[in-house]
Amino acid sequence: MERRGYRAARGVRETLGILGRHVPLDIHAVPSGTECFDWTVPDEWEIRDAYVMTEDGERIVDFRRNNLHVVGYSEPVDATMSLDELSPHLHTLPEQPDAVPYVTSYYNRYWGFCLSHRQLETLGQGPYQVRIDSTLAPGVMNYGELLIEGECADEVLLSTYVCHPSMANNELSGPVLTTYLARALLDRGKPKYSYRILYLPETIGAICYLSRHLDELRRRVVAGYVVTCIGGPDDFTYLASRSGATLADRVALHALRHCGAPYKKWDFTRRASDERQYCAPGIDLPVCSLMRSKYHDYPEYHTSLDDLDFVRPEHLEASYDLYMRCIDTLEVNARYRTTTLGEPNLGRRGLYPTLGDRTHLVQEVEDMLALLAHSDGTMDVLAIADLYDRPTTAYGSIAVRLVEAGLLDHVEATGC
Amino acid sequence: MERRGYRAARGVRETLGILGRHVPLDIHAVPSGTECFDWTVPDEWEIRDAYVMTEDGERIVDFRRNNLHVVGYSEPVDATMSLDELSPHLHTLPEQPDAVPYVTSYYNRYWGFCLSHRQLETLGQGPYQVRIDSTLAPGVMNYGELLIEGECADEVLLSTYVCHPSMANNELSGPVLTTYLARALLDRGKPKYSYRILYLPETIGAICYLSRHLDELRRRVVAGYVVTCIGGPDDFTYLASRSGATLADRVALHALRHCGAPYKKWDFTRRASDERQYCAPGIDLPVCSLMRSKYHDYPEYHTSLDDLDFVRPEHLEASYDLYMRCIDTLEVNARYRTTTLGEPNLGRRGLYPTLGDRTHLVQEVEDMLALLAHSDGTMDVLAIADLYDRPTTAYGSIAVRLVEAGLLDHVEATGC
Amino acid sequence: MERRGYRAARGVRETLGILGRHVPLDIHAVPSGTECFDWTVPDEWEIRDAYVMTEDGERIVDFRRNNLHVVGYSEPVDATMSLDELSPHLHTLPEQPDAVPYVTSYYNRYWGFCLSHRQLETLGQGPYQVRIDSTLAPGVMNYGELLIEGECADEVLLSTYVCHPSMANNELSGPVLTTYLARALLDRGKPKYSYRILYLPETIGAICYLSRHLDELRRRVVAGYVVTCIGGPDDFTYLASRSGATLADRVALHALRHCGAPYKKWDFTRRASDERQYCAPGIDLPVCSLMRSKYHDYPEYHTSLDDLDFVRPEHLEASYDLYMRCIDTLEVNARYRTTTLGEPNLGRRGLYPTLGDRTHLVQEVEDMLALLAHSDGTMDVLAIADLYDRPTTAYGSIAVRLVEAGLLDHVEATGC
Repeated sequence: MERRGYRAARGVRETLGILGRHVPLDIHAVPSGTECFDWTVPDEWEIRDAYVMTEDGERIVDFRRNNLHVVGYSEPVDATMSLDELSPHLHTLPEQPDAVPYVTSYYNRYWGFCLSHRQLETLGQGPYQVRIDSTLAPGVMNYGELLIEGECADEVLLSTYVCHPSMANNELSGPVLTTYLARALLDRGKPKYSYRILYLPETIGAICYLSRHLDELRRRVVAGYVVTCIGGPDDFTYLASRSGATLADRVALHALRHCGAPYKKWDFTRRASDERQYCAPGIDLPVCSLMRSKYHDYPEYHTSLDDLDFVRPEHLEASYDLYMRCIDTLEVNARYRTTTLGEPNLGRRGLYPTLGDRTHLVQEVEDMLALLAHSDGTMDVLAIADLYDRPTTAYGSIAVRLVEAGLLDHVEATGC
Repeated sequence: MERRGYRAARGVRETLGILGRHVPLDIHAVPSGTECFDWTVPDEWEIRDAYVMTEDGERIVDFRRNNLHVVGYSEPVDATMSLDELSPHLHTLPEQPDAVPYVTSYYNRYWGFCLSHRQLETLGQGPYQVRIDSTLAPGVMNYGELLIEGECADEVLLSTYVCHPSMANNELSGPVLTTYLARALLDRGKPKYSYRILYLPETIGAICYLSRHLDELRRRVVAGYVVTCIGGPDDFTYLASRSGATLADRVALHALRHCGAPYKKWDFTRRASDERQYCAPGIDLPVCSLMRSKYHDYPEYHTSLDDLDFVRPEHLEASYDLYMRCIDTLEVNARYRTTTLGEPNLGRRGLYPTLGDRTHLVQEVEDMLALLAHSDGTMDVLAIADLYDRPTTAYGSIAVRLVEAGLLDHVEATGC
Repeated sequence: MERRGYRAARGVRETLGILGRHVPLDIHAVPSGTECFDWTVPDEWEIRDAYVMTEDGERIVDFRRNNLHVVGYSEPVDATMSLDELSPHLHTLPEQPDAVPYVTSYYNRYWGFCLSHRQLETLGQGPYQVRIDSTLAPGVMNYGELLIEGECADEVLLSTYVCHPSMANNELSGPVLTTYLARALLDRGKPKYSYRILYLPETIGAICYLSRHLDELRRRVVAGYVVTCIGGPDDFTYLASRSGATLADRVALHALRHCGAPYKKWDFTRRASDERQYCAPGIDLPVCSLMRSKYHDYPEYHTSLDDLDFVRPEHLEASYDLYMRCIDTLEVNARYRTTTLGEPNLGRRGLYPTLGDRTHLVQEVEDMLALLAHSDGTMDVLAIADLYDRPTTAYGSIAVRLVEAGLLDHVEATGC
């Protein structure tokens, strides 16, 4: 689905403020009217109040109860009207009568309310007082950015969005999980890669960021993920990059294979978030997405039912583990080249059991031999691990020992 | 099976004359003795009469009843002989006792008759008057050609053969269907591609044509099909080019997947017609074949039972639709490149629904997004359509609109 | 498993002497202390006697009965001790109580005995007289080599090992089969390829040979096989080269598909013999292995139960046939290019049936057409045979006839 930067500007600033208490965010502001590739940063939408009120003064539809009740980007209205007059501006989901839908209208000036279909069916003829107290005026679009510097300039990108956080799986889970990942990275020692973490309004935010930093991103980003829809109850879901063959994809699939939980695999034809921008022709960043309950694939999607009952701590925890597994895999991954022709003599270096018998080698020795047998300077640790169905992380300390023993050389990558 | 240009010369001219009433054919004539690659155009075979007659004057085997009764390219004979003397010259199919087989002898001087095995078993000892009134003498080999000029010099080749049309599926169906395809192309507006349509004697005709036009064909032909065996009752059958990966192959498989009927896929090891020449090493044209009842794969093949009861109008109609689907796919196919970085803003161009809600996008918008997401200048419309399991033709008018809106650029191909 | 050049030096010389009665071997000697890549040729181990004797003078463990009873490379010992003192030096296989295990200790100075677990359980407290009469001293490492010169300098490598021949499948079967293959090659006419046949101590022998001849091997070897574990009762087992895609691999798989027996396929992750050296990064020779009962995959492996009851003549015969099929496939294989554009006229050369009818072509004509249809100078006979599921050897004499008829040109390979 196309999202064009829904942002109650004040709301976005408030969201970034809360996140900024947990990680040190740079808050950027881009003025309305700024050209970004094919787009223009829109005016700010300020929404103060919105309701439908009966003659008795009862607010039967009330923005203050749930901000989904007002169509996003609604222009102001202040009128009294009958149900018949109001009806074209009321949005419900007849097939989900208890849910309030999430509706926006950016490019057509419009106003409207969203409510449950069950409530709609109880409404009398009115008259109703109908009020939306909103403003559309030049201002800025904000986004948050955090760069965690690593040992190399090469970067891992984590991108999440902050435009409609009143829905829990899509989207609140994204910035929440991303923040915990950032926190963990900050609390560790310096990572190998630098990590660029973005909190953007969907679509317009990603396009705006790309328009300002494309060359740099293309030069530096080795792998990236759109972090969204990551708190719901469904199986892990992998959404491929356009090519499906980037390092980000390989790492995601490796992490999924070793996470011990079932998962679904979708190709780029099922895309619907900011991978649309990151993987667009001419942009071509190595970005895919790991989700749980995927946009469009669960009935609560884009309704008031996507709430804090739908998102559970245990789902977020498993998602956190999965993304940390990706990060750990990236950190360990490298290409090496053996320094000896033929196998090295491990025995005289104390790296091999002294007694040759039929006993199966300990796994660590097997892993060492695997690294030595395949490190030809082109195959990376991830590929070797996949060949042996081993977690890449198992090779980390072994590779370090073999480098220290002078048996493997690290093949330098650009930027690292 | 090797066919070496069977052609009762007068019969070929008659066939081309009939086809020429429906489409404007150029009739070419190549003199006997002309060298064509490893081959030589043979003398003309003129057959006026042929029979086996009893003492009572009854023609029990009679060329005038069915021209299959005489072995193709038979030399003249006029003699009276017993059944024992005649027998070595009689050809039947014991396992199909009612069928008259189709037999030829080009490179060995020989004469013979073909009849049903059932009839053979009723023959008395004779004597029989045996007569073949034929001539082998220098003349010409004819073939028909039609070039329908398109907007580009790049060509689609349709090749069919006209050497033994007394059998209906293999081969009359080929020139008949090809003629209706040519008629349809002539009756439409100017196509994108030029269409080169050939009516040749099998093998020697194709070799002769290639020997005269190879450079031109290699420069221009983007896809080609050998149209044969296309009127019988069996499933569609795809016979791959040598590589199996040409545009002709991709289009044929795409058309089959979307035709709604079952089909068989064979690789080049099952070839037996003029794809043998078009795909030969050093020729290497992108040519495959779409058939129904495939040569060698139905019992009526190369017998008198391959007749107008075996070929049915409804089969020809479905075949026509399949080949038109190939043509339409070729006409629509192209490579595009997006003009914007990131997705374009479709909304402000009126190309996108104004209200963002959960409703599934109409298919047309999905198709538009697919074209924009994958048009990187290398992936063609056919590949995008296959990725989304959509008919390529669905993208035709959408691509035009996106080009008009300035969002896609056509990537020029050579010759177009 | 890592093997580091076990060699009772005298034993190796004796083995090579016996093999040299069947084929003319060059015996090479490399002095102890010679540097070979990352390794050093070790001192010679001389073992004269070894036993555990009771007070009654009974040798209850006796090297003269089975040389497995002494741990390979044991240092000398001559002492009287109780069972408790002796126990740390006794090796058994509790899960295979009747088997004597094969144990070595190269890089740790050590001594020990191997016996069946059943025997261990009967031992009283002693005291025992314990004696190993061995010497470790500078000498040489020997290996055998035979070069059978062919018409071209390009080589096929057969490598087998001679360090622990007291076990029958792994390893006696290897040098025995290799010797019969060499004998057969010597008794034929001059082959197309040269054959380099090596009898080496495992690991150290291969590393030593590579360190002296790497450039030459890399320039010449087109395919090679490690011949080991080839006499047992289990299914044929293919162990791939590192890439799995060399000519050696293709030929091995082709031979297996046509040998009529079931077989197993393993990738390089299951390697455990000298393919570890031949396929190491930077060595990169096209070497794989065809086995029967594969190392590690049968319970008798590296025990006294791997004996002449386990290896049977009929297994060796089938293995001989399989390797000869590989050799014959290599000899026949070549790349050709057609000399005509389009198919040649086979009929006028007497290479094609004179009468064109529905009869299926004889297989020989089909094979001829296949060679002509695909010989584009890049596809080799092996690839064409695999496409048609035919044995490559079927194409041998046909290719010769087509070359003689001037219809195929041999595409010269380097070194041939």
